[in-house]
Amino acid sequence: MTLTPEQQADIAASRGRTATTRRPTVAALEEVLFDALPVLDHGFVRVVDYMGDDDAVVQAARVSYGAGTRSVRDDGGLVNYLMRHRHTTPFEMCELKLHVKLPVFVARQWIRHRSANVNEISARYSILDDEFYVPAPEHLAAQATSNRQGRGRMLDGAEAARVLDVLRQDARRSYDRYMELLNETPTGETIDPARNGLARELARMNLTLNVYTQWYWKIDLHNLLHFLSLRADPHAQYEIRAYAEVILGLVERWVPLAHGAFMEYGLGGARLSAKALAVVRRLLAGETVDQKDSGMSAGEWRELMAVLGR
Amino acid sequence: MTLTPEQQADIAASRGRTATTRRPTVAALEEVLFDALPVLDHGFVRVVDYMGDDDAVVQAARVSYGAGTRSVRDDGGLVNYLMRHRHTTPFEMCELKLHVKLPVFVARQWIRHRSANVNEISARYSILDDEFYVPAPEHLAAQATSNRQGRGRMLDGAEAARVLDVLRQDARRSYDRYMELLNETPTGETIDPARNGLARELARMNLTLNVYTQWYWKIDLHNLLHFLSLRADPHAQYEIRAYAEVILGLVERWVPLAHGAFMEYGLGGARLSAKALAVVRRLLAGETVDQKDSGMSAGEWRELMAVLGR
Amino acid sequence: MTLTPEQQADIAASRGRTATTRRPTVAALEEVLFDALPVLDHGFVRVVDYMGDDDAVVQAARVSYGAGTRSVRDDGGLVNYLMRHRHTTPFEMCELKLHVKLPVFVARQWIRHRSANVNEISARYSILDDEFYVPAPEHLAAQATSNRQGRGRMLDGAEAARVLDVLRQDARRSYDRYMELLNETPTGETIDPARNGLARELARMNLTLNVYTQWYWKIDLHNLLHFLSLRADPHAQYEIRAYAEVILGLVERWVPLAHGAFMEYGLGGARLSAKALAVVRRLLAGETVDQKDSGMSAGEWRELMAVLGR
Amino acid sequence: MTLTPEQQADIAASRGRTATTRRPTVAALEEVLFDALPVLDHGFVRVVDYMGDDDAVVQAARVSYGAGTRSVRDDGGLVNYLMRHRHTTPFEMCELKLHVKLPVFVARQWIRHRSANVNEISARYSILDDEFYVPAPEHLAAQATSNRQGRGRMLDGAEAARVLDVLRQDARRSYDRYMELLNETPTGETIDPARNGLARELARMNLTLNVYTQWYWKIDLHNLLHFLSLRADPHAQYEIRAYAEVILGLVERWVPLAHGAFMEYGLGGARLSAKALAVVRRLLAGETVDQKDSGMSAGEWRELMAVLGR
Repeated sequence: MTLTPEQQADIAASRGRTATTRRPTVAALEEVLFDALPVLDHGFVRVVDYMGDDDAVVQAARVSYGAGTRSVRDDGGLVNYLMRHRHTTPFEMCELKLHVKLPVFVARQWIRHRSANVNEISARYSILDDEFYVPAPEHLAAQATSNRQGRGRMLDGAEAARVLDVLRQDARRSYDRYMELLNETPTGETIDPARNGLARELARMNLTLNVYTQWYWKIDLHNLLHFLSLRADPHAQYEIRAYAEVILGLVERWVPLAHGAFMEYGLGGARLSAKALAVVRRLLAGETVDQKDSGMSAGEWRELMAVLGR
Repeated sequence: MTLTPEQQADIAASRGRTATTRRPTVAALEEVLFDALPVLDHGFVRVVDYMGDDDAVVQAARVSYGAGTRSVRDDGGLVNYLMRHRHTTPFEMCELKLHVKLPVFVARQWIRHRSANVNEISARYSILDDEFYVPAPEHLAAQATSNRQGRGRMLDGAEAARVLDVLRQDARRSYDRYMELLNETPTGETIDPARNGLARELARMNLTLNVYTQWYWKIDLHNLLHFLSLRADPHAQYEIRAYAEVILGLVERWVPLAHGAFMEYGLGGARLSAKALAVVRRLLAGETVDQKDSGMSAGEWRELMAVLGR
Repeated sequence: MTLTPEQQADIAASRGRTATTRRPTVAALEEVLFDALPVLDHGFVRVVDYMGDDDAVVQAARVSYGAGTRSVRDDGGLVNYLMRHRHTTPFEMCELKLHVKLPVFVARQWIRHRSANVNEISARYSILDDEFYVPAPEHLAAQATSNRQGRGRMLDGAEAARVLDVLRQDARRSYDRYMELLNETPTGETIDPARNGLARELARMNLTLNVYTQWYWKIDLHNLLHFLSLRADPHAQYEIRAYAEVILGLVERWVPLAHGAFMEYGLGGARLSAKALAVVRRLLAGETVDQKDSGMSAGEWRELMAVLGR
Repeated sequence: MTLTPEQQADIAASRGRTATTRRPTVAALEEVLFDALPVLDHGFVRVVDYMGDDDAVVQAARVSYGAGTRSVRDDGGLVNYLMRHRHTTPFEMCELKLHVKLPVFVARQWIRHRSANVNEISARYSILDDEFYVPAPEHLAAQATSNRQGRGRMLDGAEAARVLDVLRQDARRSYDRYMELLNETPTGETIDPARNGLARELARMNLTLNVYTQWYWKIDLHNLLHFLSLRADPHAQYEIRAYAEVILGLVERWVPLAHGAFMEYGLGGARLSAKALAVVRRLLAGETVDQKDSGMSAGEWRELMAVLGR
């Protein structure tokens, strides 16, 4: 992770300021507020602001469901009930704002989640930093042959070394020529006073997709959990999953009840289809069932057996 | 405005709690945090939480536009620039959460703004309070005859008194019979133990559209300003405008720079059409122009003359 | 269901017009295009336009997932795969536009689904029709005592008759006085030329929540299925469920493959929590498990037993 | 523009199919349906479906505003009125679906418009085509010195040639090494059977930001016009503006009334601030006003003078 001296000074200044507030405040999250938590080789995630806490979820639910909710359940039970029954609006009452540094190809997956607010550094105006993602050797994998998606077996040492060389060389070369096109260094010094630099909005197209970008990303808790349910999932690409896992840890600090409910009913649970439920009922009744007479496809059957731990 | 003793105790408790935070904090808004600001006869607006301040807008803009913005402008100038050039995303970095009590027919207009998070009291679960909106006599107006929308001249004393009688009687009667259908009082006591009450989700349909409801409403600053540009506008119905004006005052406390830019470029400005611009240019060149040779409709011409103060 | 002669003439005219198009066209949906399908006592649902079909979902998926999807699966298998793995964006490529007549209290639930486009008749400009919802006697139920939501046992004959009288009388009276306030009939005739009518935007507040309104509602297939998963669910209030079921039938005509996948993986399936999965695994292993040692609450346990058909 | 033989066959087949429909149909748009309209060096825009027409806007407006709109205005006047008064929801009743081929750096700007549905080709599953954007020499410009954004004077011949060489070489080299990493050609043939290819989801990071991608993009007319108001604007980067202009032409074919209103009140108009209005009023009153006593910044003054044609 690379923070510029300016960014480090900003972070230290932000961390040093305190104020008194009447707003709901979460001590465990305040502890890490503004800290840059490293992800991948140069990336990070920083909480820069938050609104609300577990109580805010409970309070919104009690407004909606009224007196009926007042006595019967404790807060944890209520949060579980909301998550289980897809009463999602109370979770929208909390908001998290992150500063994230991430490779462009990860940003392109991430931005597909539309229910968020984003301010990304613009390479029309700024010169991007000289940093690009190169995977650790243990994350280099061959294309999976069983399906069209995802990674198969790991590359061996020589293959991996060759891949890393290519990625490093090409990103480096593209970046060097980006500066040459700009006729400017990342800190804004002119390289050759006799030449004109190409407009930044054009020069950027020479960069490779592993160059790092940065953004402020703000999202409500409901939509954040939806993002995490897709991106902390084992089917997600490793690189975005690495971010999702760091964010999941921040969610645990911030709203431990909502986090617990999400692990129980969201990430930790499973959705069964009508046919899968029929199979489970037959199995529980002592029948022997196999894929052929389940009405399920081979892929579905395999997924169901995995879910049932068979 | 009617707050239940429970709500008053909640507000006092919330106001009494303070915590230390590293988050951006706005003293002028903290002053009124949790206070119920009265609107109409029984309604209110309360800020229950907020995220960010003018600096958060500036900070997000500086991330997007980079070093170029660093030296040249002060914060106020930058906020004005963003507003003027429709760079709206930095304004999405601030968030406001309100608790609002409002008549159902106002809620039905308000909810059309979809970019917000809402938790409304549900009459499936709770019994609504015995409160309904009756306009002040000075807000009773005849249907406008010049156009199909809005209000015309004020009703005179006898007419107004008759209208108020009808509104009061019918709301009262509908509410009384709502309780009778429920066989329950607003505080949950059974009226006649020998009868069954009708399900709440059904009984509510007997209420009139001026009954008060409540909700938590959370929205980012950009979408809030868009809401205000439509609802603090003179064409908006008086009842929703009354809420918009209170909220506008809260925005001024919260983000004075953004508020100033909005008054200058949003509410206080005007959009001119291509034809209107052509007229202005001709007028400035000393030509005499009238509606006929302006290419504009009579309505457009009238609007333009009003904008130009003619 | 009441259609004005004007509306009937419009529908007949629309049904009579045909054109040639190169767009994807669904014969089974064209058959009922523009028809008003009755719902409740005066409501209806009409398809007024649609975009796309099952092929459009498949085509979008093949763009996203490329050549890999080309040979291995037939269209039905691919649609099932997308639904099962929450690849929701291809379902957003289809769009349905409905004209709906519905009671205001139903409209208030419905509008909470924000990912749709809506044009509702405005009582600021128009006079609402003299129609209000009164439930059929078999839908009158007492408040459930087991929980705070929903309906319990049916009301008996005398109780039901009394409820229906109240609902009819109060809606009628409020409507009659609405006209009196307006000093105008629904067809726009002045009642008493010597009086001024109250502005429409004010008079409407005297109406009860069972008055019928109308809107055009346009939504993409993914968001429509999400709406249906909540509103065609047995926990939804009967009145909105009645609309959801009619729409579900239209979806079956329109996109039979997506409908089938939704019945299998959406409405017909169930989500199991981490604890529920653990219970199922233990049961399948031959263990006896009861609520106490399941770690689940009584409510959760009851729900799981229902899902497992025990 | 490069279409694969497969795509060309698909287009021919789609164009050859016709069906009878009762839906609103627009002959002028049907004429170009499925046609790939070229943009930049290898990109295109194709309409693949549409819903609604100018009448659909009018019809939705008449539902909302009721009988009052029925007699007084013709359709064109009503559409103008809606646009002028920001009654945006009727424009949401029309929907356009495009197939677009565009460079990744353009896609990154475009995707920021969140109110749209998108299915993009995924380089996790597919191998991207061997095509990348290289500007025409007349679009190569130096960085503007007056502001931090956008382009200044054009590069001269030798400078331009050098830039084009760099862009071509680096994109080519990165693409060749992408294939080498994959150990596969774009048509799926293995290059060296003795080696394992790197997973596609990783190999893609070696590509440059001018590589072409493709997507299906579906959006309603209101949000499309908002997109065009930003991207057909002279301040937009040339490359995305080139797409916006082609789409603007399609909008004119599809909904000529809405297009006309947009040119008059949207693209062709201007927003004046409160201070700018005050200046105009003073000028019209015969006063001499200069920037100093206008209260406006130098930038604002310059913009106002341009708008007023001075």
